[in-house]
Amino acid sequence: MDIDALDASAMLATAVAEARAGLAEGGIPIGAALYSAEGTVLGRGHNRRVQDGDPSAHGETSAFRAAGRQRAYRGTTMVTTLSPCWYCSGLIRQFGISRVLIGEAETFHGGHDWLAENGVEIVLLGDQECVTLMTDFIKARPELWNEDIGV
Amino acid sequence: MDIDALDASAMLATAVAEARAGLAEGGIPIGAALYSAEGTVLGRGHNRRVQDGDPSAHGETSAFRAAGRQRAYRGTTMVTTLSPCWYCSGLIRQFGISRVLIGEAETFHGGHDWLAENGVEIVLLGDQECVTLMTDFIKARPELWNEDIGV
Repeated sequence: MDIDALDASAMLATAVAEARAGLAEGGIPIGAALYSAEGTVLGRGHNRRVQDGDPSAHGETSAFRAAGRQRAYRGTTMVTTLSPCWYCSGLIRQFGISRVLIGEAETFHGGHDWLAENGVEIVLLGDQECVTLMTDFIKARPELWNEDIGV
Repeated sequence: MDIDALDASAMLATAVAEARAGLAEGGIPIGAALYSAEGTVLGRGHNRRVQDGDPSAHGETSAFRAAGRQRAYRGTTMVTTLSPCWYCSGLIRQFGISRVLIGEAETFHGGHDWLAENGVEIVLLGDQECVTLMTDFIKARPELWNEDIGV
């Protein structure tokens, strides 16, 4: 499946809805979803560090987990509101997820250049809603944000 | 804390016990534990892909999750029976885990060279029990092993 602007916008909306759900729960507002090659949602989720006391539950890993066991990830797309950290970038590389749609990489620049160098298609959307979500959150809860990225 | 041979052996024994517990449950025999700078166990776990239907539960991520929220990981040691895949290597790099003790890297060579290049201390133990555990498992369940590493 080729990604056109309409597809990308719809996929990002799913990730943003997850991020907003996390924020409403008192959590870190990062959301993600894993789409099949046919464009269906395999799994979606958001950061659950605060909600579950689980530091392993990043947006991307939550979406991956929600998708359950898959035999292969060729052709799948991970959409995320924020540039994936090394942990989530490693997940994407290890499992051969083909494409990553990224809401924004202004407030945090993770491992997406490394993924591109290693054959993963990267689409950086530069979405202003995503930038605002993270900017407001980092300003309000800097210690929580630093904990989530190990700083 | 400096790691001497006795410490390394004791830490590896914890990871091996986790791997054997996973094997007894019908799962993939990879175990890990996260140790504090003072040498206490913060969390331990094993691969739970089969047991929980959870592809995100690798040995290292399970140990990290079991340790709960930590403010920082400086000085911590992750011990694992097998060279960490990109997913688990990304975890180690992102959270600034200082040292990785690896049972073996013969049956699978993950991201530990990349971690060493990025400042993580790597101790490769070349443990024969770990090699045998994985060799026997891969021979018995090749399709399950390939699923776990996205091949």
